[in-house]
Amino acid sequence: MSKKLGRGVALVGAGMSKFGAFPDKSGRDLFVEAFQAMRQSVDKGFDPADVETIYIGNFSSDLFEGQSHTAPIMADVIGLTPRPATRIEDACASGGAALRQGVLAIASGLYDVALVGGVEKMTSLPTAEVTDTLAAAADTLYEIPAGFTFPGFYAAIASAYMHKYGLKPEHLMNVALKNHENGALNPNAQFGVTIPAWMEGRKAAAQKKGRPIPTWQNEMEFLHDDRANPMIAWPLRLFDCSPITDGATAVLLVAEEIAQRFTDHPLHIIGSGQASDVALHDRQDLTSLNAARRAAQEAYGMAGITAQDVRLAEVHDCFTIAEIIATEDLGFFAPGDGFKAAEDRVTARDGAKPVNTSGGLKSKGHPVGASGVAQAVEMFKQMRGEAGDRQVAHDLPLGLTHNVGGTGGTCVVHIYERRG
Amino acid sequence: MSKKLGRGVALVGAGMSKFGAFPDKSGRDLFVEAFQAMRQSVDKGFDPADVETIYIGNFSSDLFEGQSHTAPIMADVIGLTPRPATRIEDACASGGAALRQGVLAIASGLYDVALVGGVEKMTSLPTAEVTDTLAAAADTLYEIPAGFTFPGFYAAIASAYMHKYGLKPEHLMNVALKNHENGALNPNAQFGVTIPAWMEGRKAAAQKKGRPIPTWQNEMEFLHDDRANPMIAWPLRLFDCSPITDGATAVLLVAEEIAQRFTDHPLHIIGSGQASDVALHDRQDLTSLNAARRAAQEAYGMAGITAQDVRLAEVHDCFTIAEIIATEDLGFFAPGDGFKAAEDRVTARDGAKPVNTSGGLKSKGHPVGASGVAQAVEMFKQMRGEAGDRQVAHDLPLGLTHNVGGTGGTCVVHIYERRG
Repeated sequence: MSKKLGRGVALVGAGMSKFGAFPDKSGRDLFVEAFQAMRQSVDKGFDPADVETIYIGNFSSDLFEGQSHTAPIMADVIGLTPRPATRIEDACASGGAALRQGVLAIASGLYDVALVGGVEKMTSLPTAEVTDTLAAAADTLYEIPAGFTFPGFYAAIASAYMHKYGLKPEHLMNVALKNHENGALNPNAQFGVTIPAWMEGRKAAAQKKGRPIPTWQNEMEFLHDDRANPMIAWPLRLFDCSPITDGATAVLLVAEEIAQRFTDHPLHIIGSGQASDVALHDRQDLTSLNAARRAAQEAYGMAGITAQDVRLAEVHDCFTIAEIIATEDLGFFAPGDGFKAAEDRVTARDGAKPVNTSGGLKSKGHPVGASGVAQAVEMFKQMRGEAGDRQVAHDLPLGLTHNVGGTGGTCVVHIYERRG
Repeated sequence: MSKKLGRGVALVGAGMSKFGAFPDKSGRDLFVEAFQAMRQSVDKGFDPADVETIYIGNFSSDLFEGQSHTAPIMADVIGLTPRPATRIEDACASGGAALRQGVLAIASGLYDVALVGGVEKMTSLPTAEVTDTLAAAADTLYEIPAGFTFPGFYAAIASAYMHKYGLKPEHLMNVALKNHENGALNPNAQFGVTIPAWMEGRKAAAQKKGRPIPTWQNEMEFLHDDRANPMIAWPLRLFDCSPITDGATAVLLVAEEIAQRFTDHPLHIIGSGQASDVALHDRQDLTSLNAARRAAQEAYGMAGITAQDVRLAEVHDCFTIAEIIATEDLGFFAPGDGFKAAEDRVTARDGAKPVNTSGGLKSKGHPVGASGVAQAVEMFKQMRGEAGDRQVAHDLPLGLTHNVGGTGGTCVVHIYERRG
C-alpha cells in the first residue's frame, strides 16, 4: 500500500549561488547568496521571519572546513536564529534527504514554512585530499583499505555494466556532451561551456602561447585524446567525472493550503521516497542501485504516477555511468537501454525525456551536500517556464529528482507537480 | 499559539550500550549493542523488519572515525537496509535532534515505526585531538582562532554566572557529587562510582603501590586538591567536566494508535521543542541559553504543561555549570537559584525535582551524538519503574529531556508522559 503524507507540501521559492571554485568565499558566504536568490524567486515576496524551521544538507563541513554544527551557523548568517536548524547528512544525497525532512516537517503539522538549504565548500582542500574526504562516504572499514576511491567505484560499476550490456566507453561520452550542452546555458554552472567550445578554447590557448595547435577535428577526437581527456579509472576519463565544487542552494517549502500567499504558481511535492542499501562490496549486482529503485517506487506510489508520466528529470550524474543507470532504475528505460537512450538523444533537452537540463552534476558542478537541493531548483525554474535559454519546449506538468549518496547507500527521489 | 503534532507519538523501547572507552569496538559494534538492548526492552517484542525509517544522531564520525554516510552503515549492521536511514547532526544535540526527526516522521503520517539511534566513537583519537574535534562544534571562524576550547567556553559561562549570582566554585561540586551518586547505580555508566568511593580508590591504589597515602578527610578536600582534581579552565576542574566516551543508544518510536502492539506501558511524547542561537561570542548574556528557553517554551506549550509539572529531568550537564543553568532555563528554578537547588539537594534522586538520575553526561559519559537519545532511555527506564537501584521513589507521570549542542547553538527539549 502506498504511503501518503498527512498534509500537502508546496515548493514556492528556489535559488542557488554560482557553482564553482571560490577561494575567497566560505560555505557561509555561498549560503547567503543562495538564500538571497531564493528570496528573490518568491513571486509575492516573503518575510524571512516567516521561516519556522531550517534543514541544511551538508556532507562534511567537518572535513572540508573543520566546522561542524553547521546548521545553526547557517541560520545565523541569514538572521534566522532562534529557528530550529538541523543538519542532514547522507553523503552526496544530503541535499535530497534535507528536502525530504523539510517535507516531513510540514506534513507533520508542526510547521507551515520550512527553509531547506544545501551547502558544501570543497575547494579549500587540495584535490587529493578532497578525494580522500569523499571516500569517507564509502565503507571505510571494508572498501577504502582495498584501495577504492569514488572514481574507482564508479569505474567498477561501469565495467560491470559494459560486460552485461555491451556499453562501450564512447557511449559514456554522450552523457558528458549532453550535460555540457545544457550547462552551457546555465549561468550558475561551474563549467558552463559545451565540450566543442571547450576544445576550441584549448586550441586558442595553445595558439596564444605559441604552442603546437592540437589537431582534434571534432569533439569525439578531443574526448579520446589521453592528454585532453585523461583516463582517471578505466573506463572513466576526466569528462566522465563531475567536478569538485563550492556552492549552496536554498528552497522554500510551505503547507499547500498557504502556498497562494507566496505565489500563484507553486510546485506541489506529490511524491517523496528514500531508501538505503548495503555498501557496494556487499551487493549481488553492480549495474543497478537497489536504493534508487526502492526510492522511486515509493515516490511513484505516493504520487500515483508512473515513470512514463515524468516529463523532466534531474538525476545524480556524479559520473556519466551513474546517469545511465539512474534512467534505468527510475524506470525511464529498460535495464541495458539507458545508454542507447542517451545515444539517441531521448534524454537531450529537446528529446522526449529531458534529463539534467541544468547541466547536471557533471557541468553545473557538484558541491556534494548542495546538489540534491540544486535539483529542486532546476525543477522550480523549468516547470514554471523560467529556465531561460535552456527552457524545455514541451509542457512540464510532472518532474522528478533523483539524488544518490555514496555508491547508492542512500537514494532520495522527489516528484513535483505543476497544477494549471 | 502552541503548535501541535498532526499525530501522537509513543516511545515503546529504549536501550543503550555500555558507555566507556572501548579500544576494540567501533561505532558500528556499539550501535549493534544498543539496538539489541532496545529490542529486548520492548515488552511484547517486535520484528526489526517493522522498522520503517531510521534516524541516527552523530556529531562527527567524519573526524572521529574517518567515516561519513554513517546512517546507512548503521542500518546495514542491524540488517535494516533498504529502510531510509538519515544522519542528523546538531553537535552534542545530534541525538535530541534525531529523536525530534523521528517524532516528526511519525507525525507526518508517512511512517508508523521509527528507529532513532545515537552513536559516537570518540576515544580512537588522542585527548588533545578530541578537544580539537569538539571545537568544530563552535564557531571556527570567530571563536576557535581566539583560543577557545569547550572547557574554556563553559569556564567563561561559569565566570559570568559567578559574577552575576554569587556562585562559588565549590557550589559546582554539588552537581558532580550528585551525578556520580546516581551514575554509581547505573550499570551502563562510564564512571559508575561515587566521588567518595573514587577518593578511597585513589588512597587504596597509593597504598598498594607503596606511595604516600593522600590525607583527604572527605570528598570536598579531595575535590579541592589540585592534584586529585586539577584545574582545567578556571573555575572548572576535572570533575566539572563530562568525559570522552564511546557509546551508542537506540529508541523505538511508534504511532500512538499502534503502541499497544508493542507494550501496555508506552511513554507518550507530548512535547517537542528545538531552537537555535547565535554563537557564544555574539550573545548579550552568558548566564542563560536562549535556545534552551525557547525550546522549553515550545515543548511546554505543545504538551500543555508547565515546568512545575515536570517530575523528572535529564539535562545536558556537559559541565557542572551547564546543569545549573539548564535547571533555570527550563523554569525549574529562578535565574540565579539553580546552584542553590543543587546545594539543597532538590535535584538529588530523593529530592523534589530529580535531575540526571542516570548519572548525566558527567558520570554516565558523553558520547556526544548518542547523549540526547540516552536521555530518552533514562526516561523510559525511570517512568516505567525499571531503573533498578537508582529508581526514583515518587510517581513519575511527566518527564523532560534537555539536550544542548555546542554552547547552545542548538537546544532540543522533549516531554514524556506515562498514562495510567
